[in-house]
Amino acid sequence: MGTGTDYDLVIIRHGQSEANKENIFTGWRDSPLSEVGIREALAGGKVLREEGFRFDIAFTSLQSRAIKTLWLVLDAMDQMWIPEIKHWRLNERHYGALQGKNKLEAVEKFGEQQVHLWRRGYDTRPPMVEMNSPDHPKFDSRYRGIADADLPRGESLKDVADRVMPYWQSDIVPLIEAGKKVLIAAHGNSLRALLKHLEGVSDKDIEAVNLPTGIPKAYKLNKQLLAERTEFLGNPDEISGRIKSVANQTKRS
Amino acid sequence: MGTGTDYDLVIIRHGQSEANKENIFTGWRDSPLSEVGIREALAGGKVLREEGFRFDIAFTSLQSRAIKTLWLVLDAMDQMWIPEIKHWRLNERHYGALQGKNKLEAVEKFGEQQVHLWRRGYDTRPPMVEMNSPDHPKFDSRYRGIADADLPRGESLKDVADRVMPYWQSDIVPLIEAGKKVLIAAHGNSLRALLKHLEGVSDKDIEAVNLPTGIPKAYKLNKQLLAERTEFLGNPDEISGRIKSVANQTKRS
Repeated sequence: MGTGTDYDLVIIRHGQSEANKENIFTGWRDSPLSEVGIREALAGGKVLREEGFRFDIAFTSLQSRAIKTLWLVLDAMDQMWIPEIKHWRLNERHYGALQGKNKLEAVEKFGEQQVHLWRRGYDTRPPMVEMNSPDHPKFDSRYRGIADADLPRGESLKDVADRVMPYWQSDIVPLIEAGKKVLIAAHGNSLRALLKHLEGVSDKDIEAVNLPTGIPKAYKLNKQLLAERTEFLGNPDEISGRIKSVANQTKRS
Repeated sequence: MGTGTDYDLVIIRHGQSEANKENIFTGWRDSPLSEVGIREALAGGKVLREEGFRFDIAFTSLQSRAIKTLWLVLDAMDQMWIPEIKHWRLNERHYGALQGKNKLEAVEKFGEQQVHLWRRGYDTRPPMVEMNSPDHPKFDSRYRGIADADLPRGESLKDVADRVMPYWQSDIVPLIEAGKKVLIAAHGNSLRALLKHLEGVSDKDIEAVNLPTGIPKAYKLNKQLLAERTEFLGNPDEISGRIKSVANQTKRS
């Protein structure tokens, strides 16, 4: 038995998607996990099992790459039977008109500084998609029933936090307060928004925070439901390698 | 676009499990899908997609082989994002003290007639497991929170119907009445109990009804929420072959 029972919450960013592999701004587009992403997710589940983690409930987004990551983790843990809740508020940041564009091509077109701002500036929004763009969520049946005003056409990380955090407070916090062990499988930016809150990271410092794909991050929370202690689970070299690979996506090699 | 939009409900029995392959009475034991079972589930999802089926919500049991079947079907349909509800009332029949026993060995030990009665008699119960048997569901953490009196130690098909049908009425019927398209991925006997009700099959005739693994069965329901029309989806030869293979499990070849 490992350290699993000490923690209240685990977050895991989905493994590499096909679009990640091609270095594309994906956002709300639905891209499946790549073969590497599938292996990353299974490895994440394996380390959770080895460390003695058991969950009472799991949350994920409405996007295939996060859902599949959750399924692979639960399969590897032999916990497929726990309740899963899928919600659009845990979706990746909507990347607006950048969706579908290659990150290096965006750098060539708009300059490295602008793309860095779009990717990392806390409240910098990308160009919005038009109301009739196929990237508008209203054209995707999975978002039927969500108020038009809630559907994003392009978001800053702050916009993401503004939709993730109310959901955290209303739907997840009460379960943790009731002693439930919670797993969240989601996306780089919906999880950075949550991490920023839990770890008290400033608007400025969050720019430099990268979450590696497929590496579980465990939290022990205090009475205010903020991080008392947190750790990545897995091989340290592997973890720092994957953090760097996210940071390097807009670097020419 | 196929016939999918005409139907209200689809049931699918999980693909072959490792225990099915070894011809073991499985019941509430948790046996993963075999490679064949994985292919069966994916093929079931593919035919649903090709026939234009889209679901609003899915139900399954707390057992890995049904959950995995559901996941593979939803993946093949590109509908991973719909809500999934997992409930013990959709579990396979608890096979009591027969669980873990080879079906042919049971025939040799108890005789073909007795085993046929246990397998097919509508209200014939297998020998119950003892209160301290590892096959008692109270020792499995997934059933924590369920009243002891509800936990089966061995069930007839009638017992299964007595736990499945209240759940059908309370949790699934209201959704269908509200126009939702429902998918249920479950087990040979929990689905036979439901089929018996929907199609008005007698206690006697249900003995001869076998559900093939991994073949979706679609229902159009009438105002009484009973079957107005039903069909298996897929290649007819494949379907009749799989029905026969279930019937032959206690035959010496």
